[in-house]
Amino acid sequence: MSAALLERPTSSDLGALAARLFNEVAERSADVEGVSRPAFSAVETETLQFLLDFARSEGLAAHWDAGRNVVFSLPEHERAERYILVGSHVDSVPRGGNFDGLAGVLAGLMCLVRARRGGVRFAQPVKVIAMRGEESAWFGPCYIGSKALLGVLSEKELVARHKGDGRTLDTHMEAVGIDMTSVRASEPLLDREAVTAYLEVHIEQGPVLIERNLPAAVVSGIRGNFRYKKISCFGEAGHSGAVPLAYRHDPVLAMAELLNGLDVAWHDHVAQGEDLVVTSGMVSTDREKHALSRIPESVEFSLDIRSQDAGMLQTMHDLVRRHAERIERERNVRFDFGDVLWTKPALCSGQIIAGLTRSAEALGLESAVVPSGGGHDAAVFSEAGIPTGMIFIRNRNGSHNPHEAMEIGDFEIATSILYEFLITPQKSGSNKQRKPVPC
Amino acid sequence: MSAALLERPTSSDLGALAARLFNEVAERSADVEGVSRPAFSAVETETLQFLLDFARSEGLAAHWDAGRNVVFSLPEHERAERYILVGSHVDSVPRGGNFDGLAGVLAGLMCLVRARRGGVRFAQPVKVIAMRGEESAWFGPCYIGSKALLGVLSEKELVARHKGDGRTLDTHMEAVGIDMTSVRASEPLLDREAVTAYLEVHIEQGPVLIERNLPAAVVSGIRGNFRYKKISCFGEAGHSGAVPLAYRHDPVLAMAELLNGLDVAWHDHVAQGEDLVVTSGMVSTDREKHALSRIPESVEFSLDIRSQDAGMLQTMHDLVRRHAERIERERNVRFDFGDVLWTKPALCSGQIIAGLTRSAEALGLESAVVPSGGGHDAAVFSEAGIPTGMIFIRNRNGSHNPHEAMEIGDFEIATSILYEFLITPQKSGSNKQRKPVPC
Repeated sequence: MSAALLERPTSSDLGALAARLFNEVAERSADVEGVSRPAFSAVETETLQFLLDFARSEGLAAHWDAGRNVVFSLPEHERAERYILVGSHVDSVPRGGNFDGLAGVLAGLMCLVRARRGGVRFAQPVKVIAMRGEESAWFGPCYIGSKALLGVLSEKELVARHKGDGRTLDTHMEAVGIDMTSVRASEPLLDREAVTAYLEVHIEQGPVLIERNLPAAVVSGIRGNFRYKKISCFGEAGHSGAVPLAYRHDPVLAMAELLNGLDVAWHDHVAQGEDLVVTSGMVSTDREKHALSRIPESVEFSLDIRSQDAGMLQTMHDLVRRHAERIERERNVRFDFGDVLWTKPALCSGQIIAGLTRSAEALGLESAVVPSGGGHDAAVFSEAGIPTGMIFIRNRNGSHNPHEAMEIGDFEIATSILYEFLITPQKSGSNKQRKPVPC
Repeated sequence: MSAALLERPTSSDLGALAARLFNEVAERSADVEGVSRPAFSAVETETLQFLLDFARSEGLAAHWDAGRNVVFSLPEHERAERYILVGSHVDSVPRGGNFDGLAGVLAGLMCLVRARRGGVRFAQPVKVIAMRGEESAWFGPCYIGSKALLGVLSEKELVARHKGDGRTLDTHMEAVGIDMTSVRASEPLLDREAVTAYLEVHIEQGPVLIERNLPAAVVSGIRGNFRYKKISCFGEAGHSGAVPLAYRHDPVLAMAELLNGLDVAWHDHVAQGEDLVVTSGMVSTDREKHALSRIPESVEFSLDIRSQDAGMLQTMHDLVRRHAERIERERNVRFDFGDVLWTKPALCSGQIIAGLTRSAEALGLESAVVPSGGGHDAAVFSEAGIPTGMIFIRNRNGSHNPHEAMEIGDFEIATSILYEFLITPQKSGSNKQRKPVPC
């Protein structure tokens, strides 16, 4: 590579650099398959340290913030009073893919490297944040790192227990070096007023860009959801052959009726054009007791229902409870729903959607705006009133699994859209017609 | 206790003795809850050895047979050419109750003790057998001990793997000392012609006698069944929020639709007066991979469907496969059914039902004839053409769980009916009108 290219690197040079960084992080967090970077773990800290060392080697400013996230910037912007924040998370689900979260962090970092190497000025100061603990797989709550930053992590979330070791989130956060005083007091760890906008690049977690043959797209908003991590249904154990129907209280068939009822309602709502997805990702009878010829006394299952429409979520929540109450009466079983986690739907800022669309068009790309099925840290910034935008990268095989497959060329395209946006002065006039919509 | 009573013990004396034996066996096979006496295990061997020692202490003959079961008799009947065989099994399901199986063995033993102590002669020679390996919970196949005795244990069953250690049934049977040459060659281990009838006392595994307030009842027959130990449904993993309905291939909702469809059919058939029970005792997503926000790629579940009517079983089996094929097409998922185990329905001998009913009436008891929901070794003897009869003992809370609760008074009543039958010359005339119905 020539000195001239190093000084003014092309997008493609940075693609090769990003590919190397993706690989190195994957190697450092490899599991028996895929990668595991648990929320608020030593592996997560090591990943952040690796990125911090890399950034400094590129002449960028980098420091640990009060949430033990790492914040990067051009040296001249390290103390900027107002800035655009670009970010995503470095944690993964257990045995997950390498790109979920990490792609957004590296997209921001590559923009900083490109500006630094090329001596290019951003339209306004930019900071890039590599956050912790976005995935709900480890403790139950999601967006933990960004919630802590914005002072909205609840007491209930802080006592959520790690699914592996059973210790609380509070304990785990303290163990990675976070001073928990402010977090517990619901005090923001960053100055919200300083953040003029929050931008996040993320792999698409569904198949829409693959189906539409688009390398990248601007995001319209994020589905909200309500989630039950563990619903227990209790019936009565018995011999599979010896208890006639009249005396049965079978929790598995009660669960099947409930899930099938929700599935039917889902099909109906989608047929009417509603936005809705319904998932029960975990189901199990008690493996210590269950047997082929034994009616089990209980079964456990999770429920995750999402929509961009808050009213739709409420309708489905009412349906879940109404179905369950009827099934309890008819089958003489009992549902214990445990805790419910609610996340509001979030729409992206119209001004930022327009700006990102213009940036894509300036690069000669087909512009497209698609909804986000998965939740992202962006939802927390939006909820805090910060104008927010997102860019999706095409990705095969979904996320949260080792087979997620983002191509580096698509990563480069999404990163170029972000870079174009950051170096372009954004018009504020177009926003006067419409009130900024929270992301 | 006086010498006179010892010579001619009442049923109640033997009740106290049986209660002590039940307790001692339970203590020797206690698990963290309930008892565990695995099929073809050292615990099972120790249980048999304990009963053998007890029988010899009572002056009874007792020996290990070729299937490493223990056979008891009055000393004068040890070499009887033709005899009534009374039996049941000593193994239990994991963390099961103490009475399932063991009650039948002790009922037979108590009849021998009563005859021996009282100097009473049976109407014809009687042998009592304490068998191994009736429960399907350990390997999948059921009635293993009795099938081996009658030379009908299949090659496929012999290679079934233990759910704990994964070793084959053949290996486990050899390990407890059975010479497997005859078993593998499907040669009977006992002379079928010598057995004039097979009788089995067993706790009821359903709630019918409790509901009807009967301490004991004669059994009309045993439900047949077909059973799938592990049906896998394969779909496609993905993010719970990001895969729209149109692109979903969710195995959990496919399973829920199948189970709910079978449940609806079950209700319909019962409403039409058919005999049918449907159970899925084991369901689980992969706990190494499953998560709240992840569409799982697969789910596993069992299926156990029983009826006294072979035609009903075939109808339900056709329905299972037809529903599954439709669901596969509609959802683009795939069911792998694995092996199916079929057990034919078995009706008890009309002559023995009549004899047992007369014995109950002779004791001043209300006679009742009820179906058996659970399968029993009796089915294997019946299938081999041996006239077979069963007596149920009232039992609370079903079986295959630590809360099964047989009262010793009810055990004494069932044992008295059996004893009365064994000391009474059975009329053969009544049988001429009807061909003996296999149990």
